[in-house]
Amino acid sequence: MLEKINLDQLSKKISKIKSDTILIIADQNVWNMYSKKLDILKLERKKVFLWKAPAGETVKNINDYISCIEFFLEKGVNRNSHLIAIGGGATTDFAGFVASTLLRGIKWSAVPTTLLAMIDASIGGKVGINSKEYKNQIGAFHLPEKTYIDTDFLDTLPEIEKKSGLGEMIKYGFLSEEIFNEINQQKKLSDIIFKCAEYKYQLTQRDLKESGERKILNLGHSLGHGLEKIYELPHGISVFWGMALIFYLFDNSSEALKKLEQMYKALEVDFGEAPWFKRTFPVAKMVKMISKDKKKMTNETIDLILFDSKKSIIIETVTIEKIESLLDEKKDEIKKFNI
Amino acid sequence: MLEKINLDQLSKKISKIKSDTILIIADQNVWNMYSKKLDILKLERKKVFLWKAPAGETVKNINDYISCIEFFLEKGVNRNSHLIAIGGGATTDFAGFVASTLLRGIKWSAVPTTLLAMIDASIGGKVGINSKEYKNQIGAFHLPEKTYIDTDFLDTLPEIEKKSGLGEMIKYGFLSEEIFNEINQQKKLSDIIFKCAEYKYQLTQRDLKESGERKILNLGHSLGHGLEKIYELPHGISVFWGMALIFYLFDNSSEALKKLEQMYKALEVDFGEAPWFKRTFPVAKMVKMISKDKKKMTNETIDLILFDSKKSIIIETVTIEKIESLLDEKKDEIKKFNI
Repeated sequence: MLEKINLDQLSKKISKIKSDTILIIADQNVWNMYSKKLDILKLERKKVFLWKAPAGETVKNINDYISCIEFFLEKGVNRNSHLIAIGGGATTDFAGFVASTLLRGIKWSAVPTTLLAMIDASIGGKVGINSKEYKNQIGAFHLPEKTYIDTDFLDTLPEIEKKSGLGEMIKYGFLSEEIFNEINQQKKLSDIIFKCAEYKYQLTQRDLKESGERKILNLGHSLGHGLEKIYELPHGISVFWGMALIFYLFDNSSEALKKLEQMYKALEVDFGEAPWFKRTFPVAKMVKMISKDKKKMTNETIDLILFDSKKSIIIETVTIEKIESLLDEKKDEIKKFNI
Repeated sequence: MLEKINLDQLSKKISKIKSDTILIIADQNVWNMYSKKLDILKLERKKVFLWKAPAGETVKNINDYISCIEFFLEKGVNRNSHLIAIGGGATTDFAGFVASTLLRGIKWSAVPTTLLAMIDASIGGKVGINSKEYKNQIGAFHLPEKTYIDTDFLDTLPEIEKKSGLGEMIKYGFLSEEIFNEINQQKKLSDIIFKCAEYKYQLTQRDLKESGERKILNLGHSLGHGLEKIYELPHGISVFWGMALIFYLFDNSSEALKKLEQMYKALEVDFGEAPWFKRTFPVAKMVKMISKDKKKMTNETIDLILFDSKKSIIIETVTIEKIESLLDEKKDEIKKFNI
């Protein structure tokens, strides 16, 4: 369930959780900034244990995972313990995975502190860590009990992370007419955030394990994950460019690219030049990344999310070979493609 | 689903699985003995990857877990890959956990090769590995698609492991009147095995996450886990002595102890002397083990499975303090208690 809150209400909310033991996993940077305001280490009739997580994506590795698990086991946990994740998407991914595997699964809730986490990672129960080479290859589906959203956290969010969140927000503009309109009408950002979160929440309630319609959330991700790795871009920015590239390759009407432009202008965000602009497009690397992406259904095909001017969003199963030949064929054009 | 098979049918069964990639995790001792007979490394139109697991319980650690995951990721897996576990309970626990977390969960099936695994570990979806100090603290609920049972594996099973399986079998005699009768009538062992497996399968279908009646499967385990650790006993033998001790402490009618005796005699198994016999009972250690057991519901109470001469099996929530004082009070008697 989603809940709008203010920071200073969090300790009261946690107090009401029916559990005698609260485990907290907090991004250390967030914790340093907000621990006083949050004031959640001492709660009446509850044991509270805090594990401070290395900041951002660095936490999503097997060593921190096992350290964290062992830490809580030593402190003393039981099946009724409740875990609270406080941080960005990496922290909630990590903490959700800890919750899903500690004592075969305990309940957890998320307090997302970045724009990206508020509208994406902290909702829908996809949790996990990275393997040596690839992102999110070790994980589970484990829904949080609650996601507490307070957009006041965004006041201290670095500009690049805000941009990353807006990239993902634009994705929702393609999935929901209502969100598209709110973005273009330049509605209050906190309202649009809640709308995106609500959209994802409802969708993932209907299809937790991504066997059907949930797949549309991967719009921009099939190529985006590759871009993220190859050019070392923040996630939401890669999703933005992943959408641009997929539209460029598969949408002959160019209507989707127009919508994309319309939205980023309304949001007043500047994504700069396309990462591939004036450079040789790394076709082989991209194909390798797609082949390793866990979203592929067999070793030869992948479900691609495409924009169709009539039906809006469609899911198409294409061979990896086809993507490779398209990229190869258009690689000189792509070099010149920018927004 | 449970399925009785013969070893030489396995490759045909696997061929029919709707997946283009088969991942095999096999206990290395079992593999050395049976790989030729199984003949499953080359299957038409399928990629097959084999990871040989260190024998027995040693595999259930975080390092082997991550090695195995990375091995399969390197080989190339997709969400539709199917994992087959071949081995005893440790192997199926481990493999099921790999399946539950690889790419956020892929399907798996079990081929149990020990008596204990056939009637317990390979059924019901409790999967996991051990933390540094305690058993099964990291894990998930992830049901296998199929459990293929071939009792011919038991021909090569060491005597001590057979005894361990029979300890667990006696537990089922308390849960099911039908199994109790079959044991006492000295029915064919392979039939009783299948009956126990079927009993657990049905029960865990009704209550996967142990929120209710599944708890009765823990008969003998609350103290048994402690005995297992303290005296370094095989699991099923600890369960046998765990039942004996719990009956001794909580059942004034001693009817349960009589049933216990009746069954192990019918099975013609000799569990030797009680591990605590003529020694000082390690009350403090036992209480510590109970406190760390993941089955405890809060930090102070535990759900104990007891025998009630009227209602057969009951679940009683007792404080750990109460168990401690009972053990303390009776520790001189326990020293003399044997079967």
